[in-house]
Amino acid sequence: MNPFNQLNFSGGPGVLPACVLAEIQQAIMEVPGTRLSLLGISHRSDWFAAVVTELEDNVRSLLGLGKNYHVLMLQGGATQQFSMVPMSLLRGKTQAAEYVQTGYWSSKPIADARREGPVRVIWSGESSGYRCLPTDDELAFSEDASYLHYVSNETVEGLQFQRVLGRDDVPRVCDMSSDFLSRPCEAERFSIIYAHAQKNIGPAGVTMVLLRDEILESVNRDLPDFLNYGTQIASHSNFNTPPVFSIYVTLLVTRWLLHQIGGLKKVDAINQQKAQKIYGFIDGSGGFYRGRAKPADRSLMNTVFELPSKELEASFLAESSAAGFSGLGGHRAIGGIRASIYNALGLAAVDQLLDFMQDFQRRH
Amino acid sequence: MNPFNQLNFSGGPGVLPACVLAEIQQAIMEVPGTRLSLLGISHRSDWFAAVVTELEDNVRSLLGLGKNYHVLMLQGGATQQFSMVPMSLLRGKTQAAEYVQTGYWSSKPIADARREGPVRVIWSGESSGYRCLPTDDELAFSEDASYLHYVSNETVEGLQFQRVLGRDDVPRVCDMSSDFLSRPCEAERFSIIYAHAQKNIGPAGVTMVLLRDEILESVNRDLPDFLNYGTQIASHSNFNTPPVFSIYVTLLVTRWLLHQIGGLKKVDAINQQKAQKIYGFIDGSGGFYRGRAKPADRSLMNTVFELPSKELEASFLAESSAAGFSGLGGHRAIGGIRASIYNALGLAAVDQLLDFMQDFQRRH
Repeated sequence: MNPFNQLNFSGGPGVLPACVLAEIQQAIMEVPGTRLSLLGISHRSDWFAAVVTELEDNVRSLLGLGKNYHVLMLQGGATQQFSMVPMSLLRGKTQAAEYVQTGYWSSKPIADARREGPVRVIWSGESSGYRCLPTDDELAFSEDASYLHYVSNETVEGLQFQRVLGRDDVPRVCDMSSDFLSRPCEAERFSIIYAHAQKNIGPAGVTMVLLRDEILESVNRDLPDFLNYGTQIASHSNFNTPPVFSIYVTLLVTRWLLHQIGGLKKVDAINQQKAQKIYGFIDGSGGFYRGRAKPADRSLMNTVFELPSKELEASFLAESSAAGFSGLGGHRAIGGIRASIYNALGLAAVDQLLDFMQDFQRRH
Repeated sequence: MNPFNQLNFSGGPGVLPACVLAEIQQAIMEVPGTRLSLLGISHRSDWFAAVVTELEDNVRSLLGLGKNYHVLMLQGGATQQFSMVPMSLLRGKTQAAEYVQTGYWSSKPIADARREGPVRVIWSGESSGYRCLPTDDELAFSEDASYLHYVSNETVEGLQFQRVLGRDDVPRVCDMSSDFLSRPCEAERFSIIYAHAQKNIGPAGVTMVLLRDEILESVNRDLPDFLNYGTQIASHSNFNTPPVFSIYVTLLVTRWLLHQIGGLKKVDAINQQKAQKIYGFIDGSGGFYRGRAKPADRSLMNTVFELPSKELEASFLAESSAAGFSGLGGHRAIGGIRASIYNALGLAAVDQLLDFMQDFQRRH
């Protein structure tokens, strides 16, 4: 065991459960029951087909979804989805897609969508520095939009929606990269959900995409196969060699969520407890630690805060690193401090961080 | 140690060196010098920037290339390159790209290229069942082609070119997925070389692309960033979260090639020795084992052969599996037997296989 892994507060890649790391270590030498290393086993083997089936089923089970949802494991990150979504749903259309711009990550896909068709940004928090999310009154969704796209959790600014946006008669597409499988999310109300793995569900190198059956009828299939949702669905994410390692690790994480944690309600309760501890401490610090986001819009995944000066922030990062914590620097786009508390970041690690923060404040 | 890993004759993923597997096992818990798991360490860290730089340099060093070659580590497999190459070099062009169709894998990219522009197949072995490669007399390359594309080693049929094809005044593009870094290859004569990792250089999930500086002048950059060679080069394969695990393993394999094996001439000599042992044994088996490819075109990486009947082939596969060998089944497209002997498959494993083959022949 390496205790420092459990003190990784990075915005991504996130911590993986210690028991999963131990299983991966073993699988590097030999996957149980196969005689082979995880890195030498064939993606055309019965073993791998069973991995994919179990992973698809675990994700549906965790989210309460039926077989009308297809579960894909693709390469290219959420970034590839920024393009695949409009290539599939917007190319050649005259009705605009609607995008909600709430921070760093929801801004990125807007440019990619504009390459493919008309886009309407129906709300932007840019001028106010992305410190809050829109209220319902500020959002007017069109009934004839090609689709609605938004990001459920803004990793950089630490903002998270606590409700589902949009109209039920317009396809909803959501980038859930940084809070997927961290809480129940009414997944059955979405046409497409995508999430790269490296926050809550696995290592970098694989991205999960959920597609509701109905949306496939209107999906453009005149695309190269690797960008074609239809081809990928038909081959169960095995059209060409998939990232077997990352997919297997993701399976192990879903097993942990299902069988050790006990599902999304349970992990949500723990995540709420962790976030409340940090935000409670910040709010009670007499202004020494200052939460960046409007309190009602605070993220349960990424707690973003500032200190009274840039010098103190630099000291905080240097001293926390010396104390064994890692990943506490804010995103390069905005600076400050960010403590990301994904599923596998434990309550004990949060308590250790708060002890450090209390001590740091006392000394400065 | 798990001895079965070293008896993996699969067409892909290939064996990794035992010492590399041991290093990966350690890195899953803690990357030396970082305090963090390989799966938790940031792709924006100084550590990862050094990994990418060393890997780029190792590849250039192994191939004798200068800084005029860019080395990329991308996602999506060779399959993504089947599209990226013509998107980048053929879209909007009137001069055809020339493709040489020598087997299963060189056939795939032809359809993807035709989506983007005019394609001319200048030679096809399809009607003869892909049992041989073209001679120089059979190939007429045009001086005005947009580029020439071919596959250096046909993994499925076991065919390998022992020379560089094409004209020096037309950009040469080569899919070297299954023999990259297995021998010296006159890399400086190619404009683009691509190779997925999972044969000789690493695990599935990363694909290496080498681009010569001059070709960038004519590369189409009006593409989404993840498909844009220019963007990927500018960011040193770190435009969006890269597959850190697969890239690190690939670095470890290049270190092994450089420092333990001693470079490409050395590994080529070993690979020749392994292939000669197998082909020599087959040719001396009195017709019991029958090499599929024309002897002059035989692959040093994939030895493909047949037995006198389908029943004997089935027995061969069942008994070899029981004896601890894996991956000996031919590709699903053609059947038969295939013993793939990539860089990390040792001479001792080849000797064990030949002992088994001799015993099998005696018993049947």
